[in-house]
Amino acid sequence: MIEGVDHIGIAVRSIEESKALYERLGLEVTHIEEVPQELVRVAMIPCGETRIELLEPMSEASPVQKFLDKRGPGIHHICMRTDDIGAEDHRLRVSGFQLLREQPSLGAEGALVQFLHPKTAGGVLLELSEPQEHSE
Amino acid sequence: MIEGVDHIGIAVRSIEESKALYERLGLEVTHIEEVPQELVRVAMIPCGETRIELLEPMSEASPVQKFLDKRGPGIHHICMRTDDIGAEDHRLRVSGFQLLREQPSLGAEGALVQFLHPKTAGGVLLELSEPQEHSE
Repeated sequence: MIEGVDHIGIAVRSIEESKALYERLGLEVTHIEEVPQELVRVAMIPCGETRIELLEPMSEASPVQKFLDKRGPGIHHICMRTDDIGAEDHRLRVSGFQLLREQPSLGAEGALVQFLHPKTAGGVLLELSEPQEHSE
Repeated sequence: MIEGVDHIGIAVRSIEESKALYERLGLEVTHIEEVPQELVRVAMIPCGETRIELLEPMSEASPVQKFLDKRGPGIHHICMRTDDIGAEDHRLRVSGFQLLREQPSLGAEGALVQFLHPKTAGGVLLELSEPQEHSE
């Protein structure tokens, strides 16, 4: 089942420049990590029970770079947390959602992640994530 | 101060059609309300400690209709919860954010809301909201 919103992903050109904006809001970057398999560098900003995730492309081939080229910086995706991504992957596939990957794969912070195609999710790129404490 | 993410706003053409999608995810619409001053009808979908807010335009003049015409359905804004919107309005104005309204105004569920211009917020339409229990 879906337990809540793990994070909201925001495409930025530069984490260094963007984090000042969130600091002015009174929020703080607590974790920065490179996710080479996604070609992004991510910065996590806790906000109540959820997080803002800043996404900076690591190369021109990064999907986040393509998003920036097309739309400019802005909200990129919503990630919902689940306790069993294998079961959700199966359940959502059967219920008609198009998933972007053949099976869940490793994302930031060691989580297992899967994505729903925006075409079958009302124009929203929805990520599902099972945090590492569940997937270990 | 900012206490967390109150909701994530998603522009939809029809709440009736879109809610089926969220039901297939295992989530549920708990509240539907017209907000005539914003020219939108909203549906609230609890998701852990935060909510998804579906936004359906009430007329062609609705800013959400303009968003749909330009980008199609998708993520529209992030709303952060505060316990004192008057203080945040002042603090953020002084710190260089451009606010969309002269002062906080009434939004859905009787909350007082203000918006940060995306140009000064990294391309993100950020809403601030003080829920009714605080603003009464």
